[in-house]
Amino acid sequence: MLRVGVIGYGYWGPNIVRNFSGLANCEIVAVCDQNLQALKRVLATHPGIDATCDAQDIIAAKDIDAVAVVTPVSTHYELVRKCLENGKHVFVEKPFTATVAQAEELIELAEKKRLTIMVDHTFLFTGAVQKIKALIEQRALGALYYYDSVRVNLGLFQHDVNVIWDLAPHDLSIMDYLIAERPAAVVATGVSHFNGLADMAYLTVYFPNNIIAHIHVNWLSPVKVRTTLIGGEQKMVVWNDLEADEKIKVYDRGVSMGNGQGVYDLLVSYRSGDMWAPKVEQVEALRVEAEYFVDCVLNSKKPFNDGAAGLRVVRLLEAADRSLKNRRHIVHL
Amino acid sequence: MLRVGVIGYGYWGPNIVRNFSGLANCEIVAVCDQNLQALKRVLATHPGIDATCDAQDIIAAKDIDAVAVVTPVSTHYELVRKCLENGKHVFVEKPFTATVAQAEELIELAEKKRLTIMVDHTFLFTGAVQKIKALIEQRALGALYYYDSVRVNLGLFQHDVNVIWDLAPHDLSIMDYLIAERPAAVVATGVSHFNGLADMAYLTVYFPNNIIAHIHVNWLSPVKVRTTLIGGEQKMVVWNDLEADEKIKVYDRGVSMGNGQGVYDLLVSYRSGDMWAPKVEQVEALRVEAEYFVDCVLNSKKPFNDGAAGLRVVRLLEAADRSLKNRRHIVHL
Amino acid sequence: MLRVGVIGYGYWGPNIVRNFSGLANCEIVAVCDQNLQALKRVLATHPGIDATCDAQDIIAAKDIDAVAVVTPVSTHYELVRKCLENGKHVFVEKPFTATVAQAEELIELAEKKRLTIMVDHTFLFTGAVQKIKALIEQRALGALYYYDSVRVNLGLFQHDVNVIWDLAPHDLSIMDYLIAERPAAVVATGVSHFNGLADMAYLTVYFPNNIIAHIHVNWLSPVKVRTTLIGGEQKMVVWNDLEADEKIKVYDRGVSMGNGQGVYDLLVSYRSGDMWAPKVEQVEALRVEAEYFVDCVLNSKKPFNDGAAGLRVVRLLEAADRSLKNRRHIVHL
Amino acid sequence: MLRVGVIGYGYWGPNIVRNFSGLANCEIVAVCDQNLQALKRVLATHPGIDATCDAQDIIAAKDIDAVAVVTPVSTHYELVRKCLENGKHVFVEKPFTATVAQAEELIELAEKKRLTIMVDHTFLFTGAVQKIKALIEQRALGALYYYDSVRVNLGLFQHDVNVIWDLAPHDLSIMDYLIAERPAAVVATGVSHFNGLADMAYLTVYFPNNIIAHIHVNWLSPVKVRTTLIGGEQKMVVWNDLEADEKIKVYDRGVSMGNGQGVYDLLVSYRSGDMWAPKVEQVEALRVEAEYFVDCVLNSKKPFNDGAAGLRVVRLLEAADRSLKNRRHIVHL
Repeated sequence: MLRVGVIGYGYWGPNIVRNFSGLANCEIVAVCDQNLQALKRVLATHPGIDATCDAQDIIAAKDIDAVAVVTPVSTHYELVRKCLENGKHVFVEKPFTATVAQAEELIELAEKKRLTIMVDHTFLFTGAVQKIKALIEQRALGALYYYDSVRVNLGLFQHDVNVIWDLAPHDLSIMDYLIAERPAAVVATGVSHFNGLADMAYLTVYFPNNIIAHIHVNWLSPVKVRTTLIGGEQKMVVWNDLEADEKIKVYDRGVSMGNGQGVYDLLVSYRSGDMWAPKVEQVEALRVEAEYFVDCVLNSKKPFNDGAAGLRVVRLLEAADRSLKNRRHIVHL
Repeated sequence: MLRVGVIGYGYWGPNIVRNFSGLANCEIVAVCDQNLQALKRVLATHPGIDATCDAQDIIAAKDIDAVAVVTPVSTHYELVRKCLENGKHVFVEKPFTATVAQAEELIELAEKKRLTIMVDHTFLFTGAVQKIKALIEQRALGALYYYDSVRVNLGLFQHDVNVIWDLAPHDLSIMDYLIAERPAAVVATGVSHFNGLADMAYLTVYFPNNIIAHIHVNWLSPVKVRTTLIGGEQKMVVWNDLEADEKIKVYDRGVSMGNGQGVYDLLVSYRSGDMWAPKVEQVEALRVEAEYFVDCVLNSKKPFNDGAAGLRVVRLLEAADRSLKNRRHIVHL
Repeated sequence: MLRVGVIGYGYWGPNIVRNFSGLANCEIVAVCDQNLQALKRVLATHPGIDATCDAQDIIAAKDIDAVAVVTPVSTHYELVRKCLENGKHVFVEKPFTATVAQAEELIELAEKKRLTIMVDHTFLFTGAVQKIKALIEQRALGALYYYDSVRVNLGLFQHDVNVIWDLAPHDLSIMDYLIAERPAAVVATGVSHFNGLADMAYLTVYFPNNIIAHIHVNWLSPVKVRTTLIGGEQKMVVWNDLEADEKIKVYDRGVSMGNGQGVYDLLVSYRSGDMWAPKVEQVEALRVEAEYFVDCVLNSKKPFNDGAAGLRVVRLLEAADRSLKNRRHIVHL
Repeated sequence: MLRVGVIGYGYWGPNIVRNFSGLANCEIVAVCDQNLQALKRVLATHPGIDATCDAQDIIAAKDIDAVAVVTPVSTHYELVRKCLENGKHVFVEKPFTATVAQAEELIELAEKKRLTIMVDHTFLFTGAVQKIKALIEQRALGALYYYDSVRVNLGLFQHDVNVIWDLAPHDLSIMDYLIAERPAAVVATGVSHFNGLADMAYLTVYFPNNIIAHIHVNWLSPVKVRTTLIGGEQKMVVWNDLEADEKIKVYDRGVSMGNGQGVYDLLVSYRSGDMWAPKVEQVEALRVEAEYFVDCVLNSKKPFNDGAAGLRVVRLLEAADRSLKNRRHIVHL
């Protein structure tokens, strides 16, 4: 039985409490939020829980094994550090930290204390991403060519981070999960139309072997789009996360170099075969992730979405910010 | 009556001949192609026309007033220069030339000889672009925020130019037509998976006043996409050129800065109203453009898609190539 | 303050309790279900409520003003009659009753006792139907030509009623609400592939003035469709209820009779103008309907979705069943 | 070498001439139309052809082996009869004839004269229908449940036939081709809003073994729809003919009867697996059909779309008209 405390009960906190408390081998012991209304809400649906305004009550609690940190990124470092220092395992929202240095320090601390850090990259636990991961590992797509993601909609503007830190962690964590190679360089472009924080941006990530990733994040789109193209030598995938069914379509399409003669011949030929939409599990991703966290802690397993995974995403975000700020240079990692 | 000669009868040439010969005040006098099969085809449908393998026959013909140059870009400079030197008006395929220097020289020559150059930016004459242009000029969109275009499909690979020179001239000429400001900087990213020519690329164009444009061109997409988002302060446009009807959707959506209090308040509010799909004329764009060319020549009018417009596109293409080649620097215009 | 009892806490009951209990001038006093698990669920979220297995406890309760009957249609007549006899106002699920005779008896009884019956035709309170109703009342569509609805999906099979009684009440109640004229005749076709109950059916409803309605209901479709076409002389509406936004599209399209000459001339001409997608309110329909019920009871207003409206739908269902059973005759109302 | 004459050069005639003249073993000898402009058009593109205003020139021509009758249905009987009497094989537009009696007489005449009649049910030669036919013959769908087709758009009104005779022959010929059983009964509903000819109609066709077909044809729809659902025990097909790619989607979905206990249990369970969009050949259907006609005539093969197939469609059309006219009775075949 894992006893969990939750710090932060705003937009996402209720989902954390609902899913962890729904597990057989896990118990939500206490919830903290500075907003009294939030505490009233949690008590209404979970009468037994300890509700507090002071995070320290959870960080120092003797009967708590692990803490879920569900607060704005600016507070992650301080809270996670204290949790670790008090011997708590940590489940922390993405992005992991506000800087690479913070992430590195927390990872080192967790290793020293033999504690688990899991960063909540929820999307990795969706049926869609799991299916794509399986296709890649089965080599169904062949060598990867590119990863292209569009994540745009009208709002929701954040007051403290730009659109890259708000939306790109989803795409970067998925990209990091699906592509075995490590990124070589990042280029970010974008602008701010309002409060100085970029509200639309374009990220290019260069990988070895001519693999390229591109992410378009935008708070100013009249329509909502959640579409990812993944190009491979053998097959190509279109993932439209807004589709109720058929979220993933696998196309038996590609090109191969030919021997064009003369100036008007093309040097490539095309293959266009069937399309296939594999059934995707409809489970709630956060539920699967919660089970995985409890399993990793109780059985001392190393999660794939650990602090190191969180750090890789933060490193890309930091690099993107630098590239965005300085229009003269591409940032090399 | 304008007497026109056509050099090049490959993929696009037949459309040029069909549309110009369909005009009351225009006559196709001669067609040139090095491919005898092409000449047979043109004679089958236009028995009266002079067919020749030698471009010089058209360039030097006494009874020809204007020449349509419908050949690969690498040949444009030489052919257009000779046409101008021989006193012919010129209708030339996009991109105008292979270099900025070539374009500048040809423009100067045309001015000296008082001849018209029109670059075939066909898309500018579609009902869709004409409608968007009208909306912008009526200030219906308000101040522009961005122009975002995706033009991807499987192939068709070109043997002599990369995907930017192949597909981006469409988007760059439309962008140039719709956005009053002049570009300040270009950033291009992309890779080649086959013959050394980039087969997918992402262009960002920075304008004054925080206007930004982004173009995704790709020969390796499993699905065909032709979608452009145009964000404005008052309204936003989604143009899906693959829609049979409703190509253009105008959204009464946007954001405005509010006075958020405290750390959790948002600084913006949203406006989400009706969507409106104005009827778009279904005319053949090239027909409209052909009429416009003949009118400009016969009545000494200056076309808006003149050599200078072609030059602006070539300058962006050249800058994009430099940015793409040198991953260290953004190219400033 | 209206004190409400709820009989039936299966699939729909929780929505009834949630919405009525959310109203300022309404209180859920008691809930009845024969399933103990259901009672446990309601007590978990509404600790203060009386929970009982015996409907009589609610029907006879002194402190209850109105009863929501949320049980299978076969039980409606008996329960509603007892509620009325005990002086309770009634909010009853659709379809109102299993037969026309039952509906007529209950309406008469309610009138004698001066009690309100409201039939839960929830769809009438959606933003989409309210918008279409407004367009029709503003004469924006002009004279109506037809109402065509497709409501198909895979399952959910009912054990006690055929697909017409399961799905068509939605369409018939909307049709009844939007079309002023009264139906003249019904034709139903369909078959059963499994347990003897029709699992797919097609209803045609003839109205005066050449207005026609058609409804396709199907439990055996591989894809879910919820699309309604409404043709009018001036405008035509396409309502796709599965669209997140743009549920309603209004087309400025139509035909007008011309004066065709000769055998090959057409006798009509076409008008094809803009399309317009008005913003639709995203409120929860059942919440609006619950407010409306409380208002009607407390202020003695006659609801438009009263027993008579429920009867009109049951009459069409009964006629459709007769038409379906007897393939020889169309049933005239 | 088959020598063909064509009677009728209106909307469809040019396609007939282009495709038949494109075959190696076929020659278009003469074309007839009462409209001189039509004859000018055919001579412009096919200079060598005999052009005439008098069908008799073709019917009586010694050097013509087969005649394509591409005229309004009201003229089919007279023209086809004369062609057969003069020993010509016949390729005739759908619908075959205006009455069952005419079709039966022509079939008998053709048999007596040992001549081929092929009815131009073009859709049967599309890649989509050929693929669906193959799936059914491979038993991939299992036992058929239903065939549901929607063929609606705005216009094009015909002056001499109602919407059933104009549009339904497509669906009825496809249905007749795909479903092995023979229809048992027809029910048609619909109305006319303009010139007395039904402009929208719904056909239900009852087959043995609880197979049912339904066809919605409509000249008054604001949007164009060409969608067919085919339900089978093992798999279900959605054919959207307006899709550029992925015209056919095969769903591994269905239901099976369970052993529901008690009043609230469902009696069926659902199977929902992958979706698969097989590649469909993009050939021009009329070209394939023309080759097939020439092959059938030259090699004395009996076409599957022969007079008998045309008769089966006409019989359904006639029955539908009777059902539509008489709202009291279903017409049994």
